[in-house]
Amino acid sequence: MTDSLATGLRCIDCDRAEPLGYTLQCPKCGGLLELVYDAATLQRLGTAAFTGGGLWRYASVLPIADPAHRVSLGEGQTPLLECPRLGRELGVERLLVKFEGANPTGTVKDRTSATAVGAALQFGFTATSVVSSGNAGSSIAAYSARAGLRSLIFCYERASAPKMLHMAATASDLVLYRGVYDDLIAHWDHLAEEGLFFDCGATRNPYKHEGKKTIAYEIAEQLGWRAPDVVVAPVAVGETFIATHRGFAEMERWGFIPKRPVMAAAQAARANAITTAWRDKTAITPLKIGYTVAEGLAAGNPGRKGDWVLRILRETGGVAGQAEDEEILAAQTMLARTEGIWAGPTGSASLAVLARLLADRQVDPASTICVIVSETGLKTEAPPPSREATAFDAASLRALVLEKLAPGA
Amino acid sequence: MTDSLATGLRCIDCDRAEPLGYTLQCPKCGGLLELVYDAATLQRLGTAAFTGGGLWRYASVLPIADPAHRVSLGEGQTPLLECPRLGRELGVERLLVKFEGANPTGTVKDRTSATAVGAALQFGFTATSVVSSGNAGSSIAAYSARAGLRSLIFCYERASAPKMLHMAATASDLVLYRGVYDDLIAHWDHLAEEGLFFDCGATRNPYKHEGKKTIAYEIAEQLGWRAPDVVVAPVAVGETFIATHRGFAEMERWGFIPKRPVMAAAQAARANAITTAWRDKTAITPLKIGYTVAEGLAAGNPGRKGDWVLRILRETGGVAGQAEDEEILAAQTMLARTEGIWAGPTGSASLAVLARLLADRQVDPASTICVIVSETGLKTEAPPPSREATAFDAASLRALVLEKLAPGA
Repeated sequence: MTDSLATGLRCIDCDRAEPLGYTLQCPKCGGLLELVYDAATLQRLGTAAFTGGGLWRYASVLPIADPAHRVSLGEGQTPLLECPRLGRELGVERLLVKFEGANPTGTVKDRTSATAVGAALQFGFTATSVVSSGNAGSSIAAYSARAGLRSLIFCYERASAPKMLHMAATASDLVLYRGVYDDLIAHWDHLAEEGLFFDCGATRNPYKHEGKKTIAYEIAEQLGWRAPDVVVAPVAVGETFIATHRGFAEMERWGFIPKRPVMAAAQAARANAITTAWRDKTAITPLKIGYTVAEGLAAGNPGRKGDWVLRILRETGGVAGQAEDEEILAAQTMLARTEGIWAGPTGSASLAVLARLLADRQVDPASTICVIVSETGLKTEAPPPSREATAFDAASLRALVLEKLAPGA
Repeated sequence: MTDSLATGLRCIDCDRAEPLGYTLQCPKCGGLLELVYDAATLQRLGTAAFTGGGLWRYASVLPIADPAHRVSLGEGQTPLLECPRLGRELGVERLLVKFEGANPTGTVKDRTSATAVGAALQFGFTATSVVSSGNAGSSIAAYSARAGLRSLIFCYERASAPKMLHMAATASDLVLYRGVYDDLIAHWDHLAEEGLFFDCGATRNPYKHEGKKTIAYEIAEQLGWRAPDVVVAPVAVGETFIATHRGFAEMERWGFIPKRPVMAAAQAARANAITTAWRDKTAITPLKIGYTVAEGLAAGNPGRKGDWVLRILRETGGVAGQAEDEEILAAQTMLARTEGIWAGPTGSASLAVLARLLADRQVDPASTICVIVSETGLKTEAPPPSREATAFDAASLRALVLEKLAPGA
């Protein structure tokens, strides 16, 4: 088993060092905390620091010390798919899709659930909690069940039926909420301070956040310890984007890869606070947002993580883009038709944004571009296709098949 | 890249040898065909014959010669999960779950789609076709899209909404069928003879069938090249069961593992033709069946593959069992609650049957038992849980959390 080489926490704003413990923000300035690792040992070991399979292959750069706390449902090691047909459609020289729908509950969130629930065990908690629109709730509930912990899942009553069913099956306590979602989050945040449960929210917990970093490690390893030229990551509050950037930046610093990729932030046009601030070179103005088909990207106020995304974009020469709902649905269909990859609208938004960034010449098509597709399409709740059913006899079936496959015959 | 070591086809009934080609049944006796490999080379190479990741790691024991035809969406390499909590509930010493819901379209069928569509390319077809209740259709459609082939998917109009949506997105031609399902299958079988499309049905194509064999290879490799004592596999017409048995038998014959497992066949009580024949020591009597929650197991007439399952059970000392719909749904909940694994009813049936086999003392609880869970729960169409929603203020939220987590406080 691989030792964790985490040595402490560090405030991303004031640089204050904190010991490894259940600390969710900087006690001095309130800033977000990030994990710090033993760089000398990692530079010495190189990629030989990684052993075993799945997400915990990268345990040396994750903050869970005791192997018994490394809870797993088989997350990670998701496919990195070469997509030549889709690449040709978009005019991209080499297009890769990192398909996160292959995770145990069908989303990238399983990576953070593994380290969040692992940290809950590490710090002696017996219950977890999260407020969720669906994906995070079912993932945290599943991992909590796997670890033998209670899970108190607060879910918005409009979550899709497949997500609701999944949460009901896996959560020890599922509470459906009717009312203004932001109010619930504010109340819940206060309650999290009391320490009754382990905070599995996306806003600040550095242990949870850290799990998603493994996307970057996997992409690099799948490419023979190289990064693509560009990585397109979806952004709601920014967890996937920040963690993926962190992973590549660490690998560059420690000498595992020659060079980081350019990071591209992908938002829904109906929830575009970060993209707007990046384009206008301003601070983030929180938005009141309505519905977008990319439900997982519907964050109007990305908070401190939004600021972190913006800082990364500005300091590293990243780009940001947005796509309209129609473009997102078109990207979902294109992905399915050209490559057979079935993702939900939230998962397809990054592809729709890439198409826009290419049209706007923000991204070089003569490069290797990796798109993170964050979720399976199997949780999508949508009207089924029109059911133009027919009853066949042998002759009419034969006629139909000939018409489809050999129209000249 | 690994060479395929397939050398020919062989009739399982009359032993006639056939060259590798698009031959679906024995030209002499009409029996089912199976693949034959270069045993001497495999015995010499041992498990060094396997390189790379996913399903195509086992390309040397699969029948697709040209690496360019090895179509992939990242299938295989699914988790083999130790389930100590569930094991204790069932009184089993060591319980393992092979979770096939982690495949790209959420089911074990992706393994057969990979080799079926690979064979379609190998034999120069430009279109595939299958008649499906949902899972097979979306899987074949997705792999055909990935390979750039047309797919003509005939689907029963009562398929669940998530499955229907998935098929509509990935199939080039989706035809919904209203009428007696068995009639469609009979007409379609005749049409398949004409060679207009590649036959992706489950009844006889040995190239399709062969992909599922990789379940056995993965389980053995994940256990350090040993087999569990018992493997429980779901049985509709028997494809998963036969292929898994084949894989273990090959590995034993070629010296990759010391010993094959005992195979246990799991059926729904409402579609139990094979289990009944096994128990009564008779031939299979086809059944007229109605609805079972395990939709993927709803086969009343398993045909020649059913006979093959029965032969394996009798010749190798296997066991067969069945579970009622209520037991299957209880197993689905138990799997989610105790281990966080979310499977559909079809996928949970094997666990329900294991519970029955243990109660009937057909399986030794002091052994290592592996249950194949064939599909994700995310495609399940079921009424969502009752939505007992509440709107909170800070005080009522706090009271609720305290009541749940600290009832004495």
